[in-house]
Amino acid sequence: MNELPPFLDDPADTQEEILKATYAALCTHGYSDITIQRIGDEFPKSKSLLYHHYDGKDDLLRELLDYMIDQAEEMIPWDQGTAAEERIDVIVDHMFGAEDIWGDVDFSRALVELRAQAAHDDQYREHFTRSDRFVRKAIESIVRSGVEDGSFQSVDPAQTAAMFQVMGTGTMTQRVTNDDPALEECRAEFERYVRDCLLAE
Amino acid sequence: MNELPPFLDDPADTQEEILKATYAALCTHGYSDITIQRIGDEFPKSKSLLYHHYDGKDDLLRELLDYMIDQAEEMIPWDQGTAAEERIDVIVDHMFGAEDIWGDVDFSRALVELRAQAAHDDQYREHFTRSDRFVRKAIESIVRSGVEDGSFQSVDPAQTAAMFQVMGTGTMTQRVTNDDPALEECRAEFERYVRDCLLAE
Repeated sequence: MNELPPFLDDPADTQEEILKATYAALCTHGYSDITIQRIGDEFPKSKSLLYHHYDGKDDLLRELLDYMIDQAEEMIPWDQGTAAEERIDVIVDHMFGAEDIWGDVDFSRALVELRAQAAHDDQYREHFTRSDRFVRKAIESIVRSGVEDGSFQSVDPAQTAAMFQVMGTGTMTQRVTNDDPALEECRAEFERYVRDCLLAE
Repeated sequence: MNELPPFLDDPADTQEEILKATYAALCTHGYSDITIQRIGDEFPKSKSLLYHHYDGKDDLLRELLDYMIDQAEEMIPWDQGTAAEERIDVIVDHMFGAEDIWGDVDFSRALVELRAQAAHDDQYREHFTRSDRFVRKAIESIVRSGVEDGSFQSVDPAQTAAMFQVMGTGTMTQRVTNDDPALEECRAEFERYVRDCLLAE
């Protein structure tokens, strides 16, 4: 996903302006240093709107995450015609590429920090449970179409999708928490797995 | 690693008692709620020793992490005689098993939270860079011995080890941040990869 979701490009209403400000503050300060005050600094309207509608920074951050999945669900062209193999290549590129989500390493960093909140916060965990499932289902449908058209081996699409999604969690986490994340070596091996275990011979 | 490192079992000196107290407080409160005060509550001696030697909770937590790697390096029997295939099975068990590090899900949670600090803190990032490299080197040496004795295919040990290590980061993160982490499906696929891409035919 390199295309920005519409609300970041051109917020349609006050709620979207608030979420855009939250996104900007999150990228600038990270989870550890974000405050409602700093979100307010990015918000062009009266800050009282922020305090009126939201209980605190986590309330805003969770709404941002939920909103982003909803928009991602709309942005994914589920029925797109591109060959399954090409679509898998794009996913592998995103998992290992230098490119971060929307080209923004700060947002990747913030996502890793937000995910860690799910270790002790049920509401964050609900969010990541939902977004991981969304990613798995998207990959599963690509794998299924490749199995059906014979370009893939007759693998179990749900199992393949789980491997991709968990590996994606691993690559994003490594990229922002390790100065030498070994992602090139990992990518070479993952591509060997795709060639030998997924693509038809 | 199910065996506790010696300093948790039977601390040898004041420094080890402090680190044991830090470990206990971390498991109980998690990174988000740990304080020097709470570490002091777990420490049987004078709390002034804590304040005297350490600049703050992060200073203590990083020392705990570093100390743990050092002990892990000593605990790993690098030259152990077990067949490479069995040693790989044990690693896969640890990556996907219900069992957490030292059987302690609270410590797994805390490790995911601490790793997320590395997204914005250079010193934590140095630690995880070092500990990830340690894990990769350990796996690489197992893979190399399997390649040499012919029980594995002639794979690139560094690439294989990178895939295992990044996947391990993914599984640990998923387990504590997702209520439905799909680790069974992922494991089935990862075991298929090990069978088809690693073990000799």
